[in-house]
Amino acid sequence: MVQYSQTLLDASFSALSDATRRGILERLGHSDASITELAERFSMTLTGMKKHVGVLEQAGLVVTAKVGRVRTCALGTGRLEQEAAWLERYRRLWVSRFDELDKIVQELTQREENDGRKKRE
Amino acid sequence: MVQYSQTLLDASFSALSDATRRGILERLGHSDASITELAERFSMTLTGMKKHVGVLEQAGLVVTAKVGRVRTCALGTGRLEQEAAWLERYRRLWVSRFDELDKIVQELTQREENDGRKKRE
Repeated sequence: MVQYSQTLLDASFSALSDATRRGILERLGHSDASITELAERFSMTLTGMKKHVGVLEQAGLVVTAKVGRVRTCALGTGRLEQEAAWLERYRRLWVSRFDELDKIVQELTQREENDGRKKRE
Repeated sequence: MVQYSQTLLDASFSALSDATRRGILERLGHSDASITELAERFSMTLTGMKKHVGVLEQAGLVVTAKVGRVRTCALGTGRLEQEAAWLERYRRLWVSRFDELDKIVQELTQREENDGRKKRE
């Protein structure tokens, strides 16, 4: 069984729970960008953008480096592998759970049909 | 391109950003359970558990039904497909971005080697 780091999953799913932060990751997937460029792109104040980038940085999804007065953001090393693995495992659980319920419903339907037949006989 | 519902992604990633809530989903993947059973399983007060279940219900990941005095929880219809698709797309972006950076590093290394060779000649 995969061992998940709960703290890592908490931080990354929390970082992903905001449309702007997901947008920043997609933007940085194309090229690095300064905080100012990101703030303009998402029509946001510098302070607001710094907060979002800070959350992504804490989750290991973004790295930043300051050269002179410009802070440049790039994708971090976190490639959301554990997160994808958790989702995949959950989806398998989900499918098997609903398959099981399907079987129960089929059995109940079958039993009702048999009961109906017996009554008619 | 896949059209994501940003509101849905916000709600589900937020619901998944807590280890107890992920644990509840895994537990319900095996069988339905009452709020009381879940509270005992996760050593939590009924009020605390109700809050967690409420968050999962809002995100469409859990459904509850009250029969008499017992509220039973089951997996909802949300099977995290859009969430998995978003992660997959991000991971592809990540890989292509790092491949691109690799090429730049290779080019720079090549250039340095050539410069060194010219100096030695």
